[in-house]
Amino acid sequence: MADIYVALIHYPVCNKNQKVVSTCITGVDLHDIARSALTYGIKKYFVVNPQAAQIAFAKRIVDCWKKDESYTHNWTRAEAFSRLELAETLEEVMAKLKDPILVMTSARPKSNITYARLRLMLKKLKRPVLILFGTGWGMADELFKKADHILPPIKGKGSYNHLSVRSAAAVIMDRLLGG
Amino acid sequence: MADIYVALIHYPVCNKNQKVVSTCITGVDLHDIARSALTYGIKKYFVVNPQAAQIAFAKRIVDCWKKDESYTHNWTRAEAFSRLELAETLEEVMAKLKDPILVMTSARPKSNITYARLRLMLKKLKRPVLILFGTGWGMADELFKKADHILPPIKGKGSYNHLSVRSAAAVIMDRLLGG
Repeated sequence: MADIYVALIHYPVCNKNQKVVSTCITGVDLHDIARSALTYGIKKYFVVNPQAAQIAFAKRIVDCWKKDESYTHNWTRAEAFSRLELAETLEEVMAKLKDPILVMTSARPKSNITYARLRLMLKKLKRPVLILFGTGWGMADELFKKADHILPPIKGKGSYNHLSVRSAAAVIMDRLLGG
Repeated sequence: MADIYVALIHYPVCNKNQKVVSTCITGVDLHDIARSALTYGIKKYFVVNPQAAQIAFAKRIVDCWKKDESYTHNWTRAEAFSRLELAETLEEVMAKLKDPILVMTSARPKSNITYARLRLMLKKLKRPVLILFGTGWGMADELFKKADHILPPIKGKGSYNHLSVRSAAAVIMDRLLGG
């Protein structure tokens, strides 16, 4: 089984006018995706943001959950936060993981692999795998050029597929790694 | 195909000391579960809370997203909120839906049906189906006595399964209704 990592990307992403921007970190993205990552056996959850003030904001939350009192107050949150790591750039994460296979997700149709096929591949792969989730209105095109694999959008019953990144990340981990 | 409804229950639920309490509504539960509900073709998303102040708080958010400006600002949120309805009690929701089949979810093992079996049943059922999601540390025992079906906990790789209710709701809708 491959070691699997996830990263939440705040730059480069699009805003609703398709301009490339850096988005803000939200507390609930830290909590929810860390809890999903731990549930599905993800090795590390990287939160990637190039803005020093944003990293400082997130660090205050992460540090709070590393305290002994936090374990006593709510060990399920504290344990989830122990998998979370802050990073300024995707390049930094890629270097740390030593050439991982890069899997991207998107709410737009540009996939080149199915969930079933990647699920099977993950069981056999030896190289680490890094799965990226975008914020804002989706990751910028320049990132997709680096991807080894791109997963299909999550479809439900109609044409509306505007899940929160927290919900989409949970569904994607479940499709790839759920019991 | 059955008409499927979901409800987020704030009372009666347990706190971490297993005492039955009423929990607070959080804004992100309104947004995230409404977006998942619309993605998966759920007819209505009921938010159930017996506290007048809590309903008033949620109503301010819901009403804001019903305004024309909100549709212009972010139609994906406005559209999702159009499926959301506030209710004081589960009984009120059950009466409105005229005797729905009641499906409960839990992070604890007390299931009597699999995801695969319920997914198949939903395609054939004519009666409406109401799926309940709990807040706090899970729904109170008295609710489980009313359930027609109880789904298994969501399992990942190990024993940790402390997903947020937003993530769990998305995964459960995906397992039952995902394309």
